[in-house]
Amino acid sequence: MAERGRGWARAVRGLLLDVSGVLYDSGAGGGVPIAGSVEAVRRIKASGLKLQLCTNETQATRESFVRKLRALGFDISVSQVTAPAPAACHLLRERGLRPHLLVHHDLVPEFAEIDKTNPNCVVLGDAAENFTYANLNEAFRLLIGMEKPVLISLGKGRYYKETDGLKLDVGAYMKALEYACDIQAEVVGKPSKRFFESALAELGVPPEQAIMIGDDIVNDVGGAQQCGMRALQVRTGKFRPSDENHPEVKPDAYVNNLAEAVDIILQEM
Amino acid sequence: MAERGRGWARAVRGLLLDVSGVLYDSGAGGGVPIAGSVEAVRRIKASGLKLQLCTNETQATRESFVRKLRALGFDISVSQVTAPAPAACHLLRERGLRPHLLVHHDLVPEFAEIDKTNPNCVVLGDAAENFTYANLNEAFRLLIGMEKPVLISLGKGRYYKETDGLKLDVGAYMKALEYACDIQAEVVGKPSKRFFESALAELGVPPEQAIMIGDDIVNDVGGAQQCGMRALQVRTGKFRPSDENHPEVKPDAYVNNLAEAVDIILQEM
Repeated sequence: MAERGRGWARAVRGLLLDVSGVLYDSGAGGGVPIAGSVEAVRRIKASGLKLQLCTNETQATRESFVRKLRALGFDISVSQVTAPAPAACHLLRERGLRPHLLVHHDLVPEFAEIDKTNPNCVVLGDAAENFTYANLNEAFRLLIGMEKPVLISLGKGRYYKETDGLKLDVGAYMKALEYACDIQAEVVGKPSKRFFESALAELGVPPEQAIMIGDDIVNDVGGAQQCGMRALQVRTGKFRPSDENHPEVKPDAYVNNLAEAVDIILQEM
Repeated sequence: MAERGRGWARAVRGLLLDVSGVLYDSGAGGGVPIAGSVEAVRRIKASGLKLQLCTNETQATRESFVRKLRALGFDISVSQVTAPAPAACHLLRERGLRPHLLVHHDLVPEFAEIDKTNPNCVVLGDAAENFTYANLNEAFRLLIGMEKPVLISLGKGRYYKETDGLKLDVGAYMKALEYACDIQAEVVGKPSKRFFESALAELGVPPEQAIMIGDDIVNDVGGAQQCGMRALQVRTGKFRPSDENHPEVKPDAYVNNLAEAVDIILQEM
C-alpha cells in the first residue's frame, strides 16, 4: 500500500506524530518503544523536518510525559508535545473561564496558572482514582447550578487498557455528566479540529505541508484530514486489519510503522 | 381542569400510584406525607378499589420501603408495591440471566434467590456510595468481556435531590456504561411498558379499568398511557407548571393532589 502513489509524501515540511501506538506501546514499567521508532525520530530531526507530538494523554503533565519518552530513548522536548491540558488552559484564558477540575492528580500542575476561584465551568480529564462518587456529584452539582453549564472534556475515549485490565476512559464520565445535565461537552484533544490547529501552530507549518501519523483511524487520521492535512495510519498500536475497510475514513496511505513512513518521506525530500 | 370532562373517572376498578411526590415528599428523617394522602389511601381501600404502588425506588428492599411508608401512616403491604428490583428478578429468571449487581447495598437482599455465579449480565441500580471507580470498572470489564453484553438498568433517572444536595441518578451511570461498551441498556422500571404491565398484573385489573396517578409527566403519565391506561398528573412533588404545556404528553386530567383525584373517582363509582 505504502509503495503505491507516493504523491502523499511530497512537499512535506512538518510531521505530527501520535505517541502511544506509534512511538511506544504502553505497559508495565512505562512501556516499550516500537521497533525503529527511536531511530525514526532521530532521522526526522536530522532531516530538518519540523516535528510535533500530538497526544490525548491526560494522566500526567507534559514534563513527566516527556521524561518517560526520553527514558525510552526519544529525543523530545516539552515544547514538542501538544496535549489536551495546555490546549484547555488556552481555551479557558481566552474565554475567561474558571474551571473546577475533575482530573488525574498528576495533571493538576498543568492548571497552576489558571484562576480556579468561583468556578464557572468544569474540566474533565481521565481522573482515574479521582472518579469517586463524591467527586462526580460535586462536578455535577456545579454544572447543574450554572445558568449555562460549560463542560470541557479532555478527550472522549471510551476505554483503554492498562496492565491490570481495561479501564473506563474520560468519555464514559463525560457521557454521564452530559446526560444528567442535558448538555453537550466541548471536547479538547483529538479529533477536535481546534486541537489539530493548535498542534499545527506549534509545528509552525500550514496543514497542506504537514502529515499526521497515527494508529487511530478516527481520532488521528480522520481528525487530521478534516483540518486539511494528509494523514497516515501505522499498522502498530491499536491498528486492526478492519481499519483498512473503515466506512468513513480513508488514510492517504497505510504504512507498517513509523520507520517506514519516515523512509518514504525522506526519499521524497 | 379536574372539574372538566370527568369522563376520565368512570369505570375504574384499580389505581396505580406513584409514591414519592404523590404519597410523601422525601427529606430528612424519611420525609413527610403530602396533605390528604394518608386519608386518601384509606378511602381507596375502604371503597373496594384495587390499589398498587408503582415506584422506581431502588435504594431499599420493598420491605424496608413499606416500613417507612407505614411509619408515615400509610396502610400498605409489601405485595402492594411494584418496584424495579423484583421486576428485574422476574426478567432474570425468565431469560436465565445471572447478574453481576452494581446496586445499593440495601437492595441486595431483593436478589437473594437469584443465581449470581459466573455472571452473564450486569444489573445497575442507584448504587450511591457503591458507585466507586473500582466498581464501575469491574461492571464495565464484565460487560465488554461478554459476547453480547446485557446491561439491565433499574430506571434511567438523571438526578434526584437529597437533603445534602443533588445526586447523580442511575441513568447517568447507565449512559457511561452504554457509551463505553457501545450498547443500549434494557431499562426496568417506569416508563418501561413491561414494568407497567407487571404492575397491572399485580393489580389484577386490565389497563382500560385502571388509572395511574403520578407527579412525573413523562415517566408516570406518558408511560402509563402507552400501556392503555388513563393517567393523572398531580400538582405535588416534582410537578412544575410548565408540565401543563408538555410537547408530547397530555394527562387525562390534572388534579391538585391525590386527595382530589380520589374525591372525584369515588363520586363516579
